[in-house]
Amino acid sequence: MSSKPVFVLNGPNLNMLGQREREVYGALTLAEVETRCRAHAAALGLAVDFRQTNSEGDLISWIHEARDKASGIAINAGAYTHTSVALHDALKAAELPAVEVHLTNVHKREAFRHKSLIAPAVNGVICGFGADSYLLAISALSSLVTSNKKV
Amino acid sequence: MSSKPVFVLNGPNLNMLGQREREVYGALTLAEVETRCRAHAAALGLAVDFRQTNSEGDLISWIHEARDKASGIAINAGAYTHTSVALHDALKAAELPAVEVHLTNVHKREAFRHKSLIAPAVNGVICGFGADSYLLAISALSSLVTSNKKV
Amino acid sequence: MSSKPVFVLNGPNLNMLGQREREVYGALTLAEVETRCRAHAAALGLAVDFRQTNSEGDLISWIHEARDKASGIAINAGAYTHTSVALHDALKAAELPAVEVHLTNVHKREAFRHKSLIAPAVNGVICGFGADSYLLAISALSSLVTSNKKV
Amino acid sequence: MSSKPVFVLNGPNLNMLGQREREVYGALTLAEVETRCRAHAAALGLAVDFRQTNSEGDLISWIHEARDKASGIAINAGAYTHTSVALHDALKAAELPAVEVHLTNVHKREAFRHKSLIAPAVNGVICGFGADSYLLAISALSSLVTSNKKV
Amino acid sequence: MSSKPVFVLNGPNLNMLGQREREVYGALTLAEVETRCRAHAAALGLAVDFRQTNSEGDLISWIHEARDKASGIAINAGAYTHTSVALHDALKAAELPAVEVHLTNVHKREAFRHKSLIAPAVNGVICGFGADSYLLAISALSSLVTSNKKV
Amino acid sequence: MSSKPVFVLNGPNLNMLGQREREVYGALTLAEVETRCRAHAAALGLAVDFRQTNSEGDLISWIHEARDKASGIAINAGAYTHTSVALHDALKAAELPAVEVHLTNVHKREAFRHKSLIAPAVNGVICGFGADSYLLAISALSSLVTSNKKV
Amino acid sequence: MSSKPVFVLNGPNLNMLGQREREVYGALTLAEVETRCRAHAAALGLAVDFRQTNSEGDLISWIHEARDKASGIAINAGAYTHTSVALHDALKAAELPAVEVHLTNVHKREAFRHKSLIAPAVNGVICGFGADSYLLAISALSSLVTSNKKV
Amino acid sequence: MSSKPVFVLNGPNLNMLGQREREVYGALTLAEVETRCRAHAAALGLAVDFRQTNSEGDLISWIHEARDKASGIAINAGAYTHTSVALHDALKAAELPAVEVHLTNVHKREAFRHKSLIAPAVNGVICGFGADSYLLAISALSSLVTSNKKV
Amino acid sequence: MSSKPVFVLNGPNLNMLGQREREVYGALTLAEVETRCRAHAAALGLAVDFRQTNSEGDLISWIHEARDKASGIAINAGAYTHTSVALHDALKAAELPAVEVHLTNVHKREAFRHKSLIAPAVNGVICGFGADSYLLAISALSSLVTSNKKV
Amino acid sequence: MSSKPVFVLNGPNLNMLGQREREVYGALTLAEVETRCRAHAAALGLAVDFRQTNSEGDLISWIHEARDKASGIAINAGAYTHTSVALHDALKAAELPAVEVHLTNVHKREAFRHKSLIAPAVNGVICGFGADSYLLAISALSSLVTSNKKV
Amino acid sequence: MSSKPVFVLNGPNLNMLGQREREVYGALTLAEVETRCRAHAAALGLAVDFRQTNSEGDLISWIHEARDKASGIAINAGAYTHTSVALHDALKAAELPAVEVHLTNVHKREAFRHKSLIAPAVNGVICGFGADSYLLAISALSSLVTSNKKV
Amino acid sequence: MSSKPVFVLNGPNLNMLGQREREVYGALTLAEVETRCRAHAAALGLAVDFRQTNSEGDLISWIHEARDKASGIAINAGAYTHTSVALHDALKAAELPAVEVHLTNVHKREAFRHKSLIAPAVNGVICGFGADSYLLAISALSSLVTSNKKV
Repeated sequence: MSSKPVFVLNGPNLNMLGQREREVYGALTLAEVETRCRAHAAALGLAVDFRQTNSEGDLISWIHEARDKASGIAINAGAYTHTSVALHDALKAAELPAVEVHLTNVHKREAFRHKSLIAPAVNGVICGFGADSYLLAISALSSLVTSNKKV
Repeated sequence: MSSKPVFVLNGPNLNMLGQREREVYGALTLAEVETRCRAHAAALGLAVDFRQTNSEGDLISWIHEARDKASGIAINAGAYTHTSVALHDALKAAELPAVEVHLTNVHKREAFRHKSLIAPAVNGVICGFGADSYLLAISALSSLVTSNKKV
Repeated sequence: MSSKPVFVLNGPNLNMLGQREREVYGALTLAEVETRCRAHAAALGLAVDFRQTNSEGDLISWIHEARDKASGIAINAGAYTHTSVALHDALKAAELPAVEVHLTNVHKREAFRHKSLIAPAVNGVICGFGADSYLLAISALSSLVTSNKKV
Repeated sequence: MSSKPVFVLNGPNLNMLGQREREVYGALTLAEVETRCRAHAAALGLAVDFRQTNSEGDLISWIHEARDKASGIAINAGAYTHTSVALHDALKAAELPAVEVHLTNVHKREAFRHKSLIAPAVNGVICGFGADSYLLAISALSSLVTSNKKV
Repeated sequence: MSSKPVFVLNGPNLNMLGQREREVYGALTLAEVETRCRAHAAALGLAVDFRQTNSEGDLISWIHEARDKASGIAINAGAYTHTSVALHDALKAAELPAVEVHLTNVHKREAFRHKSLIAPAVNGVICGFGADSYLLAISALSSLVTSNKKV
Repeated sequence: MSSKPVFVLNGPNLNMLGQREREVYGALTLAEVETRCRAHAAALGLAVDFRQTNSEGDLISWIHEARDKASGIAINAGAYTHTSVALHDALKAAELPAVEVHLTNVHKREAFRHKSLIAPAVNGVICGFGADSYLLAISALSSLVTSNKKV
Repeated sequence: MSSKPVFVLNGPNLNMLGQREREVYGALTLAEVETRCRAHAAALGLAVDFRQTNSEGDLISWIHEARDKASGIAINAGAYTHTSVALHDALKAAELPAVEVHLTNVHKREAFRHKSLIAPAVNGVICGFGADSYLLAISALSSLVTSNKKV
Repeated sequence: MSSKPVFVLNGPNLNMLGQREREVYGALTLAEVETRCRAHAAALGLAVDFRQTNSEGDLISWIHEARDKASGIAINAGAYTHTSVALHDALKAAELPAVEVHLTNVHKREAFRHKSLIAPAVNGVICGFGADSYLLAISALSSLVTSNKKV
Repeated sequence: MSSKPVFVLNGPNLNMLGQREREVYGALTLAEVETRCRAHAAALGLAVDFRQTNSEGDLISWIHEARDKASGIAINAGAYTHTSVALHDALKAAELPAVEVHLTNVHKREAFRHKSLIAPAVNGVICGFGADSYLLAISALSSLVTSNKKV
Repeated sequence: MSSKPVFVLNGPNLNMLGQREREVYGALTLAEVETRCRAHAAALGLAVDFRQTNSEGDLISWIHEARDKASGIAINAGAYTHTSVALHDALKAAELPAVEVHLTNVHKREAFRHKSLIAPAVNGVICGFGADSYLLAISALSSLVTSNKKV
Repeated sequence: MSSKPVFVLNGPNLNMLGQREREVYGALTLAEVETRCRAHAAALGLAVDFRQTNSEGDLISWIHEARDKASGIAINAGAYTHTSVALHDALKAAELPAVEVHLTNVHKREAFRHKSLIAPAVNGVICGFGADSYLLAISALSSLVTSNKKV
Repeated sequence: MSSKPVFVLNGPNLNMLGQREREVYGALTLAEVETRCRAHAAALGLAVDFRQTNSEGDLISWIHEARDKASGIAINAGAYTHTSVALHDALKAAELPAVEVHLTNVHKREAFRHKSLIAPAVNGVICGFGADSYLLAISALSSLVTSNKKV
């Protein structure tokens, strides 16, 4: 198994988790999600580099950074999922195992959340399981990293 | 934990797994997927009722059957995912934890595979990890069943 | 009046009536709908052959059977209403008086329920009156059969 | 049962019934439809207030009037069915049992007649049975009024 | 030739002709258009009944009136051209020679003016020649009336 | 400042304000809105001519009347906002300062309320503030009239 | 009045007039249309240069030729009306009075005939009057040439 | 030449051939089509396994069966042609020479028959020649089988 | 059988056959296709007039010529298939048995090749069998000519 | 009244106000708009925190900051209005009174400016009044804050 | 460097350059463009074969001719750019370096000029620089020819 | 010639050039592109200010900076080309000669790369020539700056 960490990247508004629209996103904070990710990853022998930003440009740069420093990427790009071709291109450029994650089942929500622009640039997608989506993504990454399956 | 099994339901053409278009779907047969599911579920204390059919009507009836006999549903509806409103309605009627599963990342394939009619009727979706998609779905179901989260 | 019965044909998920999503479909079971249909038809001097299936193919075959054995068809094709060109063709082939029925007002629901593929192949459509939709359809069929108006 | 009449409201061009395009609409005049409606309603213990106008504004005002003076509304809005959001809003504002009626099966005709803007603002829709559509609508209203089901 | 007049019917905002947006519609008033129509029709042995209204309902009623009292209809339905199915139906019901007229070349203007809902219900369309459009329409009607070509 | 009043024109169903769907439109009646408008306008030195109609034709004629008699127009065209090209043309013809007003935030409601056909024919749009939308519109008109900014 | 002739240009398949689909296009041949055009133009003091081709390129070149040699253009571009941006550009380049003509009312026919690509590049459009469409176009051109109104 | 038969598979409603809508489909029964197919195939040295079903699931299973037992497939999937992604996938999975057949020229009929979902999964398409379409398909299959051209 | 030849008409770029994109179109030249057509037709007692042009106008004129000189038409209109309404009209005007032919299965290629504008104007369509498409078309024409089935 | 200020947030390119495209946006600079806002707010007893950024991420973070530090938000998101789902989500997360503001009447401009992605996440929208749009928004916010109406 | 010339091919209406719509296309004639192309090419050691036609068929044939006689193609297909699949296919068949050229920035003009059907069949596109577009295209071709990069 | 440099601005992911997807973008790094740009510009007497960022906001601010400090702009906005209205507005605000550049022929790639939102805000577009696209853009800018042609 790779000695590099997996990057768990969080996009816009995820810093508000636990405060914002709890009936939609639940009461867990992003810090608590991070804690659960670290524990789950550790059990699988993986380190986690967990980050959040509201800036599309920062997300792109972090994905570039992952190319050298990470063994894989789990990304919850938040609303940029539905509008950012640039993130699609960055994930293609990273040439790493990558998983798209969502807390909610986006297909039950507004139509503008049904289309992901980044899905064609990752290995797979996991959505709808709250914080568990992240843990499942780390499990998935663990397998992908082991079997060295890039996007 | 529920003493009822989870239903793992497979739709059209999945009986051809391992023979058909291996470059797309891989070399694993459905029997081998079933074996891996049973092992993974057992480790989580779950029984599995694993089935495949090419008939939309049979899938619907199995989902109805699940309402009484299963603790949750993992469904790979194959091509019916993209055309069946009736499966959507059946999953709504089942009122059980349910996960949509795909072997491939459907978002990388033909446009007619990008839209799932059943996604709004399940808790969450997992796609793109080959047979691992099934194992992740069983893990997800295990949590959903434990916390009793219905669709 | 014809000595042949009218066929009242029910499609996918209608067997779940009374159990499933009662806030949408009401608490009446399909058996109770059948009882009410028989009573109403009897008052109009009509016999009823009442059936349900989850299989599109069975619905098609029953419509073919109606061509010889029925004086008219009332059909609640459930979700197949919105996806089945084959049912449209079967109704055209039956060359009998036919009425499309829905328990709910489909126009108040999801957009994918607004379009009926079978409506152009029946005499008329009745929707939104719960079980009464069936009784109104039988009344309508009674007139159509008497006046021998085929689709 | 309510002592208020049901309003049977007819929109544009229905005054031409019996003259205009008989191969589409039949030979019955609107006066004859009214006579049949009165007889049918009387048998159900209902009075009928039967009106026709070519003015969208009048139809709206009549629906407002119904709010206080009628127990229910059957409306054949003619071509306004397909273009009038204002009628949709008026029916919502009336807060009465209401049925949309059409002489013809609109789904067999030009595409611009397939969409009803008012259907989401009524209890149910009946179309395709000629003058019988009105009688079925009065039957349906009778039940709705009795059970006090508003839109 | 018929002893009945041709109806020249004008819809919404045409009363503002000569005041409103002169750079689009020209400086001629509707009264002047009427004068030119009368002179041109007289030269062809036709009387003209020239009217304007802002009410869709009135236009419909006038078209119904034409059925008995006119030999043909020239109609500039103004903005209702693009939104009124009811006018389409009224023209169909009139069963008379009919010509759609526009002062401007609607195809050079906003996209919402490119589609005429009434064009399929008239014999022909003339647009883009200012007041001359009316005179050409009267010439066209004269031939249609003579040869008794209904829509 | 102009000695002519501003016209505050209200379209279909606004006469039902305070009765109809209070959870959407609030409990204020149109008479109370008028009272608040008059007070607010008076404070700005403006008179108000406040009217309501369910007739599209009347609205058009009132806008024409405004051309001579009003210094500006605030218009809540209700549902005609979304369907009337004729109102768009009337507002263009009025050549006056004009403001489109809505009680509710139409962008939060059904998709068919998102598009305004009249917005391109007014100076600006104010929506979502209940009766305050009218007062803000009068404030806006006051500035526009003072600075003589026509559409 | 100009001493240059008007060009009456006919596009693909119009050479088949009188043979082809008479129930659609009538029994008149193109030669007979030409004869009627010449007579009508002569009465207005105009000469006619009447041509037909099946080649889009030839039509374009003839329109270029018209720039110097004609006082105006009447064009029935046949099916190229609906597909040729090049003809649109040629008519713009001609900078002459121009009229689009059709024998039939294209709006009553297949949807692909409802859109004219050349209409925005002419003064006006006349359709639906059979051979009379040509004569009306020549009348219209006569006025346009006299008043020197270019596209 | 292969000693395996070609499968000639018929979908929904084709059992009604010769009874249903003869003006569209002709008077030949499916049994007669089968007889002609057998004769034509025999002349080419091919055996035919000729089947019909109204069930989409059965069609899929037969195509799977063909993978081992047939040298090629001619398929008239009836209305499923236009709605079934699952048949598309089955044909891909069969990895055999395959021809899509239709009795009628589907492009002359309703718009919903213009799109074939299975066409991209066969070698070629033949439509519009009545029963001859089947014979031409068998001729085509004969060449494809001989030259071993799979989809 | 008719003593007139069948016209086999080839549109743009088909002269490049055998040189151009061999992986798509194969190595056969158009001259070789012609040779195979002549041999196949001769065996059926038919003469062939085989032509190719890059000009849409020429194709149209040849179809007109066929009206008198040919017993039927097989046409591979190449890319004009997807853009030419004029060819559609010419084929309608020819009033002859006609077959649309393509070397490749156009439904497997770019979306802009999926729609044929000429298909509604021919008896049937054959695509996907390389040069065999032509031979099958000649067989089909032979039957159509014998049974005198025009489009 | 709240002792917290209202945030007036300005998005991309608004720093160019007064320099850029003056015929569209006017000659006022953003500093002058700020001055007018402060004066107007002060008169209403409100403080203003006025900011501008070209960064979508900064706008999002400022909206998050507003959740704790502001009593309401007036936002002119510039071009991000039409493309940013992330701003929509941020405004939802802020759970504060909020008003969308535009200097110009966006409905008169290019089609890509007609759709606001953030409008469903604010209380109301004000556009088209130049700098006055801001003042009206502050007035509106003042009422919303007083009556404590959140989005 | 190749001893074959580059073909500079011009489509419909470009012969009108310098006369037609100068405010759009400028005052330079096509002859002057040719002169500048020759000079620029000569400086790069390239000969130019410069042609113009209004015929789509001729353009196709010239592209075919280029296959043998040219080292590369610069093509300004004028309006055929937006409508001709046949030119797309011809360029594919030429298997030469090719550049699409436009005088104007087509993206600033009517929507029907935004889509190029031929762009996917060339190496690159240059638009918006007037006659300089041609010179830049020749520079680009020079590099492509040298490095032997075909489409 | 201007003494100000041209700005060559590069958007998201272009820093990965030479590493990322070499089969699409080539092996040249952005530093090498810069070197080639500087040499080419110097030969034309121009200085180059060459920058790259992953931030949309930075690109906007740099374009604003160009207004004062640059003589022209060449911009490869990467994926923001297809999603950023804000960049469109910034380029409009810059009021400088500007050229849109792409390494690849975007029209050969995914559909979401076919539409440029910034193209209407620049003088011209150059795509498909790899690093040469930049050099051609600098040549084009050189002419535009000399002749002082702003967007």
